[in-house]
Amino acid sequence: MTRIFTKIILISSLLATNTFAQNTDVDALMVKKIYDHTLKNGKCYAWLNHLSRNIGGRLAGSHNAETAVHYTKSILQGMSLNEVILQECMVPHWVRGNKEVVEIVNSPSIGIKKLHALSLGNSVGTGADGLTAEVIEVMSLDEVRELGTKKIEGKIVFFNRPMDPTKIKTFHAYGGAVDQRGSGPAVAAEYGAVAAIVRSMTTRLDDIPHTGVTVYKDGVKKIPGIAISTNDAEFLSDLMTRETVRLYIENDSKMLPPKTSYNVVGEIRGSVFPDEIILVGGHLDSWDVGGGAHDDGAGCVHALQVMQTLQDLDYKSKRTIRCVMFMNEENGLAGGKKYAEESNQNNEFHLAAIESDAGGFTPRGFGFSAEEAVFTDYYNNILNWSPLLEPYGIHFEVGGGGADINPLKSQQGMLIGLRPDSQRYFDYHHTAIDVIDAVNQRELELGAAAMTSLVYLIDNYGLK
Amino acid sequence: MTRIFTKIILISSLLATNTFAQNTDVDALMVKKIYDHTLKNGKCYAWLNHLSRNIGGRLAGSHNAETAVHYTKSILQGMSLNEVILQECMVPHWVRGNKEVVEIVNSPSIGIKKLHALSLGNSVGTGADGLTAEVIEVMSLDEVRELGTKKIEGKIVFFNRPMDPTKIKTFHAYGGAVDQRGSGPAVAAEYGAVAAIVRSMTTRLDDIPHTGVTVYKDGVKKIPGIAISTNDAEFLSDLMTRETVRLYIENDSKMLPPKTSYNVVGEIRGSVFPDEIILVGGHLDSWDVGGGAHDDGAGCVHALQVMQTLQDLDYKSKRTIRCVMFMNEENGLAGGKKYAEESNQNNEFHLAAIESDAGGFTPRGFGFSAEEAVFTDYYNNILNWSPLLEPYGIHFEVGGGGADINPLKSQQGMLIGLRPDSQRYFDYHHTAIDVIDAVNQRELELGAAAMTSLVYLIDNYGLK
Repeated sequence: MTRIFTKIILISSLLATNTFAQNTDVDALMVKKIYDHTLKNGKCYAWLNHLSRNIGGRLAGSHNAETAVHYTKSILQGMSLNEVILQECMVPHWVRGNKEVVEIVNSPSIGIKKLHALSLGNSVGTGADGLTAEVIEVMSLDEVRELGTKKIEGKIVFFNRPMDPTKIKTFHAYGGAVDQRGSGPAVAAEYGAVAAIVRSMTTRLDDIPHTGVTVYKDGVKKIPGIAISTNDAEFLSDLMTRETVRLYIENDSKMLPPKTSYNVVGEIRGSVFPDEIILVGGHLDSWDVGGGAHDDGAGCVHALQVMQTLQDLDYKSKRTIRCVMFMNEENGLAGGKKYAEESNQNNEFHLAAIESDAGGFTPRGFGFSAEEAVFTDYYNNILNWSPLLEPYGIHFEVGGGGADINPLKSQQGMLIGLRPDSQRYFDYHHTAIDVIDAVNQRELELGAAAMTSLVYLIDNYGLK
Repeated sequence: MTRIFTKIILISSLLATNTFAQNTDVDALMVKKIYDHTLKNGKCYAWLNHLSRNIGGRLAGSHNAETAVHYTKSILQGMSLNEVILQECMVPHWVRGNKEVVEIVNSPSIGIKKLHALSLGNSVGTGADGLTAEVIEVMSLDEVRELGTKKIEGKIVFFNRPMDPTKIKTFHAYGGAVDQRGSGPAVAAEYGAVAAIVRSMTTRLDDIPHTGVTVYKDGVKKIPGIAISTNDAEFLSDLMTRETVRLYIENDSKMLPPKTSYNVVGEIRGSVFPDEIILVGGHLDSWDVGGGAHDDGAGCVHALQVMQTLQDLDYKSKRTIRCVMFMNEENGLAGGKKYAEESNQNNEFHLAAIESDAGGFTPRGFGFSAEEAVFTDYYNNILNWSPLLEPYGIHFEVGGGGADINPLKSQQGMLIGLRPDSQRYFDYHHTAIDVIDAVNQRELELGAAAMTSLVYLIDNYGLK
């Protein structure tokens, strides 16, 4: 066995090209304390239970979102931090309405069949009369452009390119398919389509439709956009190989005037470098269906648990540690933009910002990104900490951040994304089944402990 | 970014201290082919659905176990392997019976309360009259020995030491608590106890009792052993701080005469080194409650999928690749012992044996062990393959194997255990909820792909 261990030590010492992590034993002990405490006394699961079950889905502008603001503010207020504030931002106020119908009509072979459907976020409605039209299947935005007005006009465009199951990280598969949901209705409308339906963003074959934001184009007519389940997408596609299919669509979702909402912010002031901010955060809003448990209640309670654990362990930070729960990540990013804007106005410097917005599953590591001028130095320093976190299954990799923290990039700090195991994420993402029962307590706690450990290391050693 | 990549290449080249993995590009391509094929065309989830849902729990000696033998044999027979056989072994035949009652009786504060209970595997029954006795709580086997006959005699001993939630790998927490289940009833009986109840082996607080084997001591009276749920263990323990508690226990489980059963074995003969065997396996038996989906249906379909993928990809192996589904891992290990015995008699050499018996969750790596004389050389060669599997989240570590393959150690090959994420394993282990719905298809397929990739590398390069 000796030869193996020699080899491991050799690699570790090669990585240690600078003076970081000199107190390896002390650091290892602190990391263990953080994990032990979180796994024994963590409150994040109980908080998430309340947030996702009792409060529930909390789309920006909704009553539930407001309740969630006050609930999480009260948690931070219970921690004796240096400051807890609400940061105002104006958010879009979209409401789903009560009707969401996508129905195959007058099929010679199957008659009428209702599909599992969910309006896309920000979608306009059809009006009370609904609409009926022939459906045309496409596999990409480009295919719509190639087909052109002649083939598209007056039709319902059905975007049916599946997420690629061979991508090991499911976010890559999502990234490769989600343009259909985000831009499908807008592109279809350019060529005269009357509505767009989109295959749900999941590799799983099931009956659960997945919502998510769609974005309209200025100057182009807004047409309804609706997701259908993957089973129904397969069924519809198959049926279309045999006959011309017409769909009846009716939904009454609509955009109301913007509303005032809030980011929730709590802060521990640094004792040595108060101007170097380490941010931990997630987004407080979620889609209206389901409980927003993984997306992104998990990220919020991860961030809250970081603060709680540091307090419980009586940790006195050198740097300022700030917990931010952002509003409106899902359909506008108003909170993230507003936060960066005010931060820049105040000449703040975020040395590091860690966002958890990929679910409450077992953490597998962190991804890192920053402006080129600082990235390499920062990252090489961070790599020194690998031996401290690898025993906990945490690995570092290039590329990461989060939608809410990305606007902070110009401050030349490190942007960091927690990377939980991604295999199950798109089983639940933006659906009615993203509820507390889909979250495992230990997996959630391990995410919080990983984030707290990284915050401790950055706080203790900085990144330069 | 350049500096980082230089560093990574430097480390990789340092690891490559021998001539293994010379065709890195070819190997990377083959690994990708294996993963792509498994994620797109894998059959393992459908097989597991049939095995765990349609056939169901399959304790050695049961009708379901027999059905599972024939079902998995027929799958292997569908693959055009060189040989498919059933290997006979004699297995214990324990039956749970119909009654499992653990009841708090005549409590001054709460009256009668029935606890969630499940007889331990191999447990004797109480007889039709049941038994009533005072309960005494202990935290360890040693505590029973310290209390001695005077305190223990005539009582029901309640083993209540929880699994340690701070262990990151939950199998370590299990290992630290399971002696209570495995030996509790035997040790309690030595000091005159009339029965033993055991806190279920899980860190979760819920109402689900977990069964599992208990082992009696020769020459000591056999007393009933029954698991109770963790919620009930907490409740009972709390009640005992306030009052003397008496329990009524009744169960009618019993051991019947041994029965003939089988290991299921399928083999692809090696084209260059047919005498070097690479085994992939899991155990076909499971506990009678639930569907044995994670334990160890997942391991069986992992092993089957390895064979299927190699066939589908038209891979011609240099070495002999053998799929073994062992019988009776749960309460006797008859299959594993018999397999090793015959293998030794036939002077076989298992260059490597890979067992999957830790669930169908996202694989995080493999653990390795072998006799000291060969371990270091083999393991250093294996470490060269890390860069090929790390993109799939697979990491190698020292220590591993499996109960069924461990008897092969003396053949001086490498024993390998698949290491799936362990956080949820003991939510389901040995319970009625270890069913197909607890298994995620992608997570299961990734385990099969990881095993197939490792088999390919060992087959192609050997270990010497």
